[in-house]
Amino acid sequence: MESDSQDKSLNNRKVPLEMSPEEFRKVGHQLVDRIAEMFTSFPQRPVTSGESSKIIRQALGNNKLPKTGTSTDRIFEEATNLLFDHSLFNGHPRFWGYITSSASPIGVLGDLLASAVNPNVGASALSPMATEIEAQTIRWISELIGYPETGGGLLVSGGNMANLVGFLAGRTAKVNWNIREEGMNAANQKLRVYVSKATHTWIEKAADLFGLGTKAICWIETDINEQMDIEALKQQILSDQADGYLPIMVVGAAGTVSTGAIDPLPEIASICRQHDLWFHVDGAYGAPAAALPEASAQLRGLSEADSVALDPHKWLYSPLEAGCVLVKNPQTLLDTFSFHPEYYSFDGSKEDPSLNYYEFGFQNSRGFRALKVWLGLRQAGRDGYIKMIRDDIALSKALYHLVEAQPEIEALTQNLSITTFRYVPVDLSNDDSEAGKYINDLNQEILNKLQAGGELYISNAIIDDKYALRACIVNFRTTLSDIQALPEIVIRTGRSLDAEMRPNHLSN
Amino acid sequence: MESDSQDKSLNNRKVPLEMSPEEFRKVGHQLVDRIAEMFTSFPQRPVTSGESSKIIRQALGNNKLPKTGTSTDRIFEEATNLLFDHSLFNGHPRFWGYITSSASPIGVLGDLLASAVNPNVGASALSPMATEIEAQTIRWISELIGYPETGGGLLVSGGNMANLVGFLAGRTAKVNWNIREEGMNAANQKLRVYVSKATHTWIEKAADLFGLGTKAICWIETDINEQMDIEALKQQILSDQADGYLPIMVVGAAGTVSTGAIDPLPEIASICRQHDLWFHVDGAYGAPAAALPEASAQLRGLSEADSVALDPHKWLYSPLEAGCVLVKNPQTLLDTFSFHPEYYSFDGSKEDPSLNYYEFGFQNSRGFRALKVWLGLRQAGRDGYIKMIRDDIALSKALYHLVEAQPEIEALTQNLSITTFRYVPVDLSNDDSEAGKYINDLNQEILNKLQAGGELYISNAIIDDKYALRACIVNFRTTLSDIQALPEIVIRTGRSLDAEMRPNHLSN
Repeated sequence: MESDSQDKSLNNRKVPLEMSPEEFRKVGHQLVDRIAEMFTSFPQRPVTSGESSKIIRQALGNNKLPKTGTSTDRIFEEATNLLFDHSLFNGHPRFWGYITSSASPIGVLGDLLASAVNPNVGASALSPMATEIEAQTIRWISELIGYPETGGGLLVSGGNMANLVGFLAGRTAKVNWNIREEGMNAANQKLRVYVSKATHTWIEKAADLFGLGTKAICWIETDINEQMDIEALKQQILSDQADGYLPIMVVGAAGTVSTGAIDPLPEIASICRQHDLWFHVDGAYGAPAAALPEASAQLRGLSEADSVALDPHKWLYSPLEAGCVLVKNPQTLLDTFSFHPEYYSFDGSKEDPSLNYYEFGFQNSRGFRALKVWLGLRQAGRDGYIKMIRDDIALSKALYHLVEAQPEIEALTQNLSITTFRYVPVDLSNDDSEAGKYINDLNQEILNKLQAGGELYISNAIIDDKYALRACIVNFRTTLSDIQALPEIVIRTGRSLDAEMRPNHLSN
Repeated sequence: MESDSQDKSLNNRKVPLEMSPEEFRKVGHQLVDRIAEMFTSFPQRPVTSGESSKIIRQALGNNKLPKTGTSTDRIFEEATNLLFDHSLFNGHPRFWGYITSSASPIGVLGDLLASAVNPNVGASALSPMATEIEAQTIRWISELIGYPETGGGLLVSGGNMANLVGFLAGRTAKVNWNIREEGMNAANQKLRVYVSKATHTWIEKAADLFGLGTKAICWIETDINEQMDIEALKQQILSDQADGYLPIMVVGAAGTVSTGAIDPLPEIASICRQHDLWFHVDGAYGAPAAALPEASAQLRGLSEADSVALDPHKWLYSPLEAGCVLVKNPQTLLDTFSFHPEYYSFDGSKEDPSLNYYEFGFQNSRGFRALKVWLGLRQAGRDGYIKMIRDDIALSKALYHLVEAQPEIEALTQNLSITTFRYVPVDLSNDDSEAGKYINDLNQEILNKLQAGGELYISNAIIDDKYALRACIVNFRTTLSDIQALPEIVIRTGRSLDAEMRPNHLSN
């Protein structure tokens, strides 16, 4: 009898996570409507509520794991309220902080579809169409930026992972012993990787986590434009070789994180060829700008790289997460990452071998992040992306000219779509080092106030020891009038804080 | 004049990626409806279309990057047709391959909401509410499986990354020099990590990528139940210490990938304490079963681990991607991963320090994968999860009894929700080694045929040199009648292939 009743309950499982088609449609439609409302409400909202973590935690409530369930319509009512009232919106026209773009609405719907089909894009057998769409996306991105379409690559979570994949491919390719089995300390040889001083912190993570240690990083000086000093690079490689080190790779930047500078990529490529070094380009932010007909030869030099990192969730306007690494020779990824466990049955036939992305990177199970990128490329096409990127750059240049025209704002740099500047009280000259320190403190406070205030959102950079304010426009919702609002906001905030802070900071 | 017209175009940007609210609602509602249809259509569909990659590529078309855009309704019409007609569906009631679960519908809608709000959950300032929801999700998962809620952790892309994070935390904690700066070959000491022979291939990736080399892995024998041999572990540690190696960590399995075996976790914990080793548990699949009141003491021993990997996209039924790593002491993750670049302004105040997930793992920019997990935990509650997991286990046990009752099927193992078995023609005894090899070949062909056929989807395991068929039920849509259909399908396929293959394979 007990077995009979168990049979019955296993045949008519009560599933607390299931939703009827009617419920799914109803809740789904409501959610779509609320999201459409949210998108249109951006101009009327602050960029961020700017609340302290304590306030946020109070709003969420410090609840224990619920013992029993809650209805889906009530959960979504609560979740949308919590998120719409207490978030920072990258999609806001006045969000220009760090480097996260406005997410394309089609990408948002793409994430819904990807999640519903739920293919595991680790193996072609588990995701037949999704795997081919990812492969097509990789070819299209290559085509867009002028990278060889005969290469390969894969989508990853973001810039860190894309750069780490490229780094590891270089490590495996250029080390002259069986590092996969023997590890780093099999040979008594110290590796060296060369990066400019403006390189993003992923390089430290890579050197640390992959066993080289951060001392293996040679930080090459940059010139006044934040570009790698090529003569210094050449000298450092020669002197390291003479000292018995093993140089393995140079990293070039296609858009540094602070100012958007582009290293002289063709010259770096030539040095890498000469010394048999891996050439990796960190184009997480800037690589899509190579799509522009007017792109510089320095940027186009990324086509010569062995590997390129590029984030679709930055300048291709995909929702998070979408990073991408491209490689000239896909075999280098297989050589770095492929294992063939006995419990997988994915190889396909000899005539029709399978493309299994689990062999090309860190992950085994992989979601379908390619879909949102592919949908965006189809919706806008090459011409559409060129237009959006070009407009972002034009807005950044317009911002530079606007702040340059203000006596109280010092314009500092403009590259790609990044503009940096700082507030300087009219009566203070930076020749005075005490004033210099005060101006840095003042700008840091201006940033804090602006970030919490929600009128606009920018971030910071350090440029020649100057604490700079930084706007990075990877935002198709930003218009010229948004940009034009910035000087007044910065000056108002700067004056008010200067009046507060100066009496306590400066003796004169 | 040119500048005036540029001003105008930058004030009224034509944005090829934008959608009007009406268009977003219309396309969004259609998509929700089609997804609801897809969910209900599973029982009438094959699990997979089983087509070759060549056919899939033809269906997709080998198009170049489009120069101009396409309308969103047409793109979604094409995308849904391509995906619904040429996918494998993990959400199908008869999908029992590898370890991917049916995705909860609420999780699917959660991915829509997460993508729309698009918070960057790398820093609290960029994702105030999302960061707190992730922290709450981590606490709830800990609570669910009996792991100390005073710990911490974060969500990652899946099991590989969760295990890699735990591994690195252990490496940093137990190495007795400054490995982050100096790298692996600063000290002339060879590290050792201990895992059972049944450990998933992530351990080879970890040892390889993080500079130890795969030779640093000590593969400890397993007993007849695929559990780590504790005496062998003890002996190996002692002999390695005597030989001058530096043992740093033991990995215990809470559900091996092949058979779902659980290592004697309390005994491993005790050995780790005794030798000051890091104790990592790979519970990517099995850890949620610790929520059951009837869970074994061996499984509950995961509460003693320094780090635990657990995939919500496995047995918490979240859509891909959702992995999770829990750690007893969150400081160990900061010690392993934190860098503080000068271009970030995220630290918060002294009174209210910020929780910034970029400091706890590989990624800087991070999506809001916590939302789908959190929504599922709210919808089902603890009781709901216990019921779903318990039913999956009951179905797996029912399958074992069903295949055991068949003269032509040899039942092999049953643990957690994994059942293994193989087809054996009634007239062939496995005592004969030639027959043994043939039975392996036959079962491999049975698997190929079943995987392409779409009636059900299982995978394989190798058990004592036997090629086994393997069903892993992490699927709330599976019912007893789905399970009851398996023996007939396996026997029919086995008989037909045996008739084809035997004449060419066996002399007698």
